Amino acid sequence: MIQVAVMGHGVVGGGVTEILLKHTDDIAKKVGEQINIKKVLDIRDFPDSPIADRFTKEFGEIIGDDEISIVVEVMGGLNPAYDFVKQCLQKGKSVVTSNKELVAAKGAELLKIAKERNVNFLFEASVGGAIPIIRPLHQCLAANNIEKINGILNGTTNFILNKMVRDNMAFEDALALAQEKGYAEKDPANDIEGQDACRKICILASLVYGKHVYPEHVHTEGITNVSLKDVEYAYEWGGAIKLISSARMNGDGIEILTAPMFVPFDCQLSNVDGVYNELLVRGDSSGTIGFYGRGAGKLPTASAVVADVMDCVLHKDKRRDIFWEDSDGSNILSYKLYTHAMYVYAESDDPLNALAHAEELFGECERITKWDAADNEVVFITGELTYSDFRKKCKAFTEFADVKSIIRVAKI
Amino acid sequence: MIQVAVMGHGVVGGGVTEILLKHTDDIAKKVGEQINIKKVLDIRDFPDSPIADRFTKEFGEIIGDDEISIVVEVMGGLNPAYDFVKQCLQKGKSVVTSNKELVAAKGAELLKIAKERNVNFLFEASVGGAIPIIRPLHQCLAANNIEKINGILNGTTNFILNKMVRDNMAFEDALALAQEKGYAEKDPANDIEGQDACRKICILASLVYGKHVYPEHVHTEGITNVSLKDVEYAYEWGGAIKLISSARMNGDGIEILTAPMFVPFDCQLSNVDGVYNELLVRGDSSGTIGFYGRGAGKLPTASAVVADVMDCVLHKDKRRDIFWEDSDGSNILSYKLYTHAMYVYAESDDPLNALAHAEELFGECERITKWDAADNEVVFITGELTYSDFRKKCKAFTEFADVKSIIRVAKI
Repeated sequence: MIQVAVMGHGVVGGGVTEILLKHTDDIAKKVGEQINIKKVLDIRDFPDSPIADRFTKEFGEIIGDDEISIVVEVMGGLNPAYDFVKQCLQKGKSVVTSNKELVAAKGAELLKIAKERNVNFLFEASVGGAIPIIRPLHQCLAANNIEKINGILNGTTNFILNKMVRDNMAFEDALALAQEKGYAEKDPANDIEGQDACRKICILASLVYGKHVYPEHVHTEGITNVSLKDVEYAYEWGGAIKLISSARMNGDGIEILTAPMFVPFDCQLSNVDGVYNELLVRGDSSGTIGFYGRGAGKLPTASAVVADVMDCVLHKDKRRDIFWEDSDGSNILSYKLYTHAMYVYAESDDPLNALAHAEELFGECERITKWDAADNEVVFITGELTYSDFRKKCKAFTEFADVKSIIRVAKI
Repeated sequence: MIQVAVMGHGVVGGGVTEILLKHTDDIAKKVGEQINIKKVLDIRDFPDSPIADRFTKEFGEIIGDDEISIVVEVMGGLNPAYDFVKQCLQKGKSVVTSNKELVAAKGAELLKIAKERNVNFLFEASVGGAIPIIRPLHQCLAANNIEKINGILNGTTNFILNKMVRDNMAFEDALALAQEKGYAEKDPANDIEGQDACRKICILASLVYGKHVYPEHVHTEGITNVSLKDVEYAYEWGGAIKLISSARMNGDGIEILTAPMFVPFDCQLSNVDGVYNELLVRGDSSGTIGFYGRGAGKLPTASAVVADVMDCVLHKDKRRDIFWEDSDGSNILSYKLYTHAMYVYAESDDPLNALAHAEELFGECERITKWDAADNEVVFITGELTYSDFRKKCKAFTEFADVKSIIRVAKI
């Protein structure tokens, strides 16, 4: 009998206990041992839970219980999750978490402790909810050099952008709808400002390139500045605007960022609907591999957590070898050096003159038009250039037009 | 140092040695031990190979070498692969294979021997080439009941169907092009008759439902009867024809088949291009998860084989718990009982009369028309009904029209 504690009884935590209780026998058959929830930690009371008697408000009852060998952390946030998880690992307990903030901020340190104590620290659910990503990246692509990863890693923003594209909804209305449907939090900043997606690409890049990538070293832009006009021009260009998280090796450095980007319709990321996520991984031998599914939600995320718990049981003697080293961020190349083609939406009283100057500054540009454009709209896509070069030229261009919006074209 | 033998130096085998030689140090770093190719078995000579001195024509040199702990089987076909693999497992060697024919025909028996001898028998590369499918299905979805799996599992037929849809090519021309490009064998029967896809869905269904599913118990239709007209009518209906392999639980039985099907454009399987594969898996907790990538090819397949070899090294003391029981096929429901909506293409001198009789026989039907249809074409989609019921009604319908083509509508 394996004794497990679950820290946090929110949406995901509730799902974890639900699955562990509902599938007890199936799970025991698969891992060869019964898994029992001995304690659930939450500051709230849940008198109606079928395991109400196992709730505790005291972390001490978990850390002090030597029978508990696996601890599930689904509280979210850095504090007190970080302190609790660290103590558990130090005490020789394996930890499973869905907490991307924790892994992105403290992954290297926690993995080091796990390695020293020969226990597991698993976090499949922290990226892509139910979609198996961490394990396939780590294992199945082990024989590949991963050239690049590109993905839609945040369902909330994808839902909002989708509503803007499909239903011509303004950003604010789409956000309100996402909140109404429970896809977005009351304070949606983490999602719409891109931090959530940024944390996930940090975790993936750390795993793939072997050194911790901290969110503070990663250029991150959210979708709050994306307008309906941008969406419409993207469509005329032949694509959709998506919040893309991207990482690739460039020489010895890593290019990594999260930002809204133009994605052409012939790239499957342009077709990812609603709250779904998709990750494309390019290995030197495998070619491009795609992983698709619901990136969030109670049961999808909880099922990934439970699978990790089962994996802990199967690997209780020999820990899984997931590991990456700490890093000072010196391996991250500045976002100013990444090259992209750029979409520019500007307004000018003399649009032809502005366009002529655009070509002079940026070289040959692809002009985008739409039938109901106002006379003063000047919209084009530049050739590929570094971001710093682009900003310099863009500054010069403001002499001839009022630049309202700029968006990268994805390189997938 | 881990000593490995590779049986077969064809396309995939060549890729395996290439990757193992090229990435020796990276791989050693990842698994903690050097992996050395000690022997390569092939009846042909390869004097130009950098490891020409390690080639042998004698299986005895592999089975008799106690230093060799992992054997890679990439010969393909049942004989002598089955005999060789069985002997290796019985001798306590782990085996990695990309041979779907072998796993589909003998998986239960070989897994049993592997279990008894406490060695690994891994076959990630047998389904979906480089796409991680076996392991994610087994591990990451462990906490789910898998409700259904649907996929495009054969790249050759997908390439052919794609050419028919996109370039209006006749089946024969598309097949010739596939052969020219090396996607189809000289004898393409295994691909175009559906056997290759059938073997793969058998392997997946065995894994997911825990009992061996033998190809001879699975209804299989190829794409040789799909005409350009069918492709055009599918487009008018709002979808594409794809060779779909499908398995789902229905009560205690399994519904499983491989056949060309109408797939609506809003299902992502309709958009899978060229030689790519995609598998959609629906778990009760996870929702739908998708896996996408190149389903064949030298390096993609070889990279999956090498990843399995690495996994064998990591699990040399504790074997991976992939296993399913043997079965007599009594758990497979007859394909005659599966319900589908059906596409019918018929010709009649009195099409209005034929349509009226169609509605009488099949109930309300969705008529499909196209602008350049001949006057005698009668084309419609029936409601959902069992295949045996459909065939009965179809027979009665032949009194009023000449039925030229019938195709299932996918239930994904």
